[in-house]
Amino acid sequence: MKMVMAVVQDKDSPRLAQNLVKAGVRATKLASTGGFLHAGNTTFMIGTEEDRLEEVLDIIRQSCRSREQVVTPMAPMGNQMESFIPYPVSVQVGGATVFVLDVERFEHF
Amino acid sequence: MKMVMAVVQDKDSPRLAQNLVKAGVRATKLASTGGFLHAGNTTFMIGTEEDRLEEVLDIIRQSCRSREQVVTPMAPMGNQMESFIPYPVSVQVGGATVFVLDVERFEHF
Amino acid sequence: MKMVMAVVQDKDSPRLAQNLVKAGVRATKLASTGGFLHAGNTTFMIGTEEDRLEEVLDIIRQSCRSREQVVTPMAPMGNQMESFIPYPVSVQVGGATVFVLDVERFEHF
Ligand code: NI
Ligand code: NI
Ligand code: NI
Repeated sequence: MKMVMAVVQDKDSPRLAQNLVKAGVRATKLASTGGFLHAGNTTFMIGTEEDRLEEVLDIIRQSCRSREQVVTPMAPMGNQMESFIPYPVSVQVGGATVFVLDVERFEHF
Repeated sequence: MKMVMAVVQDKDSPRLAQNLVKAGVRATKLASTGGFLHAGNTTFMIGTEEDRLEEVLDIIRQSCRSREQVVTPMAPMGNQMESFIPYPVSVQVGGATVFVLDVERFEHF
Repeated sequence: MKMVMAVVQDKDSPRLAQNLVKAGVRATKLASTGGFLHAGNTTFMIGTEEDRLEEVLDIIRQSCRSREQVVTPMAPMGNQMESFIPYPVSVQVGGATVFVLDVERFEHF
């Protein structure tokens, strides 16, 4: 048994949750903030048998992979001057930081 | 030293917390949602010496064991028709998903 | 690779976060309550290479060390009688409970 701790961006969290459920992988979400991914994030705590570990990591990779996204920044608060011209910029979103830990014992009461 | 990560239902959380305190076992609660137990849940992170591990697992088992509970469902939202006749049903509540991890080093500053 | 789980008091959390960032150590914060430190607390989940573990533990120790603090208690709620005379008392604040776990595998997608 392994425990997978995966820190992912909030925006990827529903997709990852859905894909884990679809694969019959059980997980719980821990509320988390800041840190690894420079944005609102969620930590998934996933328990998996060793022989499904690669599959679980694939699901995380595919649900959360780092990618470019074009966003148009908002005018800064209080800055309503005509001088602000918003133009789209490309930012990197997604990504996951994943730790795999060994589980010595697993119980289900 | 072992770390016990126990995901339990919110309704069992106060009893488990109380029973751990009574036994002098120290724990912290991580806010968690969804997943393992199909309901609002809490994750207890518990540190314990190896020779008290069985005792800690017993406390979790006894505080959270899976059991039947009779509930009367509410009418679905917006459904106020006379055709809704609530009748009690038996649902399974409680249960705990428990991971035991080895702690390489423990410090208390 | 090691995972450091550090439970610290809320009041020490911003300083620890800042000192970890300054040292280039990446961490995520898990919302946590009660337990180890008898007060509002935060759990830092920190990933570190083995050769920086001592440094990380030093940062935690220095950011959160247990210390005396003089506080003047508030009158208890609803107790507005003249008989309440607030006087400063010394309480212990800070401290950290730290678990170091081995990470079998670390991935960054
Ligand atoms: Ni990154
Ligand atoms: Ni179950
Ligand atoms: Ni203490």
